[in-house]
Amino acid sequence: MIVTLLTDFGDEDGFVGAMRGVLLGRAPGAVLADLAHHVPPGDVVKAARVLRRAAPCFPPGTVHLVVVDPGVGSDRRPLALRAGGHVFVGPDNGVLIEAAEALGGVTEARALTERSLWRGTPSRTFHGRDVFAPVAGALAAGLPLEAVGSPVDDWVRLDAPRPVRDPGGVWRGRVVEVDRYGNLITDLPPLPGPLRLEIAGVAVQGPSPAYAAVPAEALLVVVGSEGTLEVAVRDGSAAARLGARAGTPVACFTPDLPPSSAP
Amino acid sequence: MIVTLLTDFGDEDGFVGAMRGVLLGRAPGAVLADLAHHVPPGDVVKAARVLRRAAPCFPPGTVHLVVVDPGVGSDRRPLALRAGGHVFVGPDNGVLIEAAEALGGVTEARALTERSLWRGTPSRTFHGRDVFAPVAGALAAGLPLEAVGSPVDDWVRLDAPRPVRDPGGVWRGRVVEVDRYGNLITDLPPLPGPLRLEIAGVAVQGPSPAYAAVPAEALLVVVGSEGTLEVAVRDGSAAARLGARAGTPVACFTPDLPPSSAP
Amino acid sequence: MIVTLLTDFGDEDGFVGAMRGVLLGRAPGAVLADLAHHVPPGDVVKAARVLRRAAPCFPPGTVHLVVVDPGVGSDRRPLALRAGGHVFVGPDNGVLIEAAEALGGVTEARALTERSLWRGTPSRTFHGRDVFAPVAGALAAGLPLEAVGSPVDDWVRLDAPRPVRDPGGVWRGRVVEVDRYGNLITDLPPLPGPLRLEIAGVAVQGPSPAYAAVPAEALLVVVGSEGTLEVAVRDGSAAARLGARAGTPVACFTPDLPPSSAP
Repeated sequence: MIVTLLTDFGDEDGFVGAMRGVLLGRAPGAVLADLAHHVPPGDVVKAARVLRRAAPCFPPGTVHLVVVDPGVGSDRRPLALRAGGHVFVGPDNGVLIEAAEALGGVTEARALTERSLWRGTPSRTFHGRDVFAPVAGALAAGLPLEAVGSPVDDWVRLDAPRPVRDPGGVWRGRVVEVDRYGNLITDLPPLPGPLRLEIAGVAVQGPSPAYAAVPAEALLVVVGSEGTLEVAVRDGSAAARLGARAGTPVACFTPDLPPSSAP
Repeated sequence: MIVTLLTDFGDEDGFVGAMRGVLLGRAPGAVLADLAHHVPPGDVVKAARVLRRAAPCFPPGTVHLVVVDPGVGSDRRPLALRAGGHVFVGPDNGVLIEAAEALGGVTEARALTERSLWRGTPSRTFHGRDVFAPVAGALAAGLPLEAVGSPVDDWVRLDAPRPVRDPGGVWRGRVVEVDRYGNLITDLPPLPGPLRLEIAGVAVQGPSPAYAAVPAEALLVVVGSEGTLEVAVRDGSAAARLGARAGTPVACFTPDLPPSSAP
Repeated sequence: MIVTLLTDFGDEDGFVGAMRGVLLGRAPGAVLADLAHHVPPGDVVKAARVLRRAAPCFPPGTVHLVVVDPGVGSDRRPLALRAGGHVFVGPDNGVLIEAAEALGGVTEARALTERSLWRGTPSRTFHGRDVFAPVAGALAAGLPLEAVGSPVDDWVRLDAPRPVRDPGGVWRGRVVEVDRYGNLITDLPPLPGPLRLEIAGVAVQGPSPAYAAVPAEALLVVVGSEGTLEVAVRDGSAAARLGARAGTPVACFTPDLPPSSAP
């Protein structure tokens, strides 16, 4: 059985290592697969995007363990969900839901109320080790989902604004993620070209068929790997060039529109 | 058989990758599990804490391979130890001992003097690849511990100062570790509250039951995941806020004490 | 079957996680082993060195998947190669070749033209997920190399300058890599000592038998783990101390030579 791990724990303190130990203790034959561990501390929105990106690439039956959990120790609930044959374990802060919906939607949800599955009395600050990993390990070892606790149907959702087409026909969205390269992933759909994208006071023509289709250090627009428009700099960082970040507004003009008078 | 890996090699040069290759060559069925690889270069004290944190979460029989080894190529000895059914392999610089003691203490110790187990003639600078990984792989593949070399009983220890209660009843300790979040892990025990902790000229009341029990960006004290007091900033870094680091003194006043006159 | 992964994807976005999912879907029993993921973005030369360092440590039969691919989406070819019983999968930008030659040279090479092995219609920007991982997974699951596409024999090579011995007997080379510690790995052979190495206007006597053979923070020269001369600072960074980087010239004087008049 595959168990994926997604955290904001980094790679310096051994927190992920502790969870790996608990998982392999509970599910000796499990295959552990990291999704990412350098999510910015407490960044639930970024973690939800990473999970949405990576989880559907795994085969059904995979257990996805997510610990990006700034509410640890508070009354936020620990959850386990089933969606599309995958199982998700993590805090009830919205981090799991976007991926579950990408896999067809939640078909079963439980709060982790069965304390006998936990690792002794949980600490105040490390439910990844004490609550989430033991339960994920038990599920990977074959425990039925209904054994982890009580059914729930009122989980927390992350409400992201959606891009809109304004009355003048201009698409208006925003940067939803900046990746390691400084690429600016937007929520705009793969609009037919030629198009002109405006961001941070700069206009970019596109789309380009590839990063390498423009000169080095030039700005470009490309359809990214999840099917939305992405702003990039060849061999460079668009985030640094434009001073843009998650949330930065983006407007997109398609050919039948006049140029914006004020970019 | 599980083999854990703990190094200060980072993730950019392929040094851990080379060790993984050697391990899987010597122990084809081994399950490799990373503890951490971004320990600050040469920071044996930090590595000892990471190992102490993570190793006991693994099942008995696990082989823990630790290469934080600023003395590589000198006459520091390579060691293998047994403790609590776990096996530890690494340099004789103290990095292994705290974890071994947490598992009940060293019951057998050997210097890695059996050179036929090594990988040819070792380099001057990479005993992780040439000495430690081949021996750890052989142990994971079933080699008895006594086959790796000569018995030793005079291993290096890291001597950490211990917290003390002064004649006035004040607990005096220090920050022993800063984690990725900037949380300040102290060596103070989980004292009964209400308490007042003084650090870097600032007083913090506590303990709080969780990070989320205080307003965003507020300082707090919480009992951390290893049972000692921890100073944190909700959704922020206490290390950055206070300019504190490993070694920073901490004082703790419990209710029967008058306030400090000079914090 | 072992599949290694080498990328410049970092550990924050889930790109490696997505590839792990595709690999485990195509090759359910595969053992995944990371070589490195924090190669600087697009640094094909560094990635080639990492692969050369780590791949030969794995047993024959290993599949090495490399995605450092600034030309993704352009007409650069995706390749699979066989060398020394190992299989390499990655872009035709030279990244695979140095490792393949270290294993005895390429004995078979194919372009990945068999699109039925890919993951649907590939994106413009993520051939790691859509082309390279599915093919690497298929190869790990037993697909013969000839099934991935058409034979090729004109792959791209990285042309690195070689060190030379000048008419005066001085060895002249350069820094070829800086590692996490700030050690400066050169292309100079392990010349017999005593020698004097000149770099960035500074002279260093050597070689030293180990980092720990000089006082803390002293410069030294040592024969590194791949058999070339390396400039280091004990418990410090030679790159920071000297302002050196990949490409910085290095000269080496052996005993029968007069000192350089102009270092």
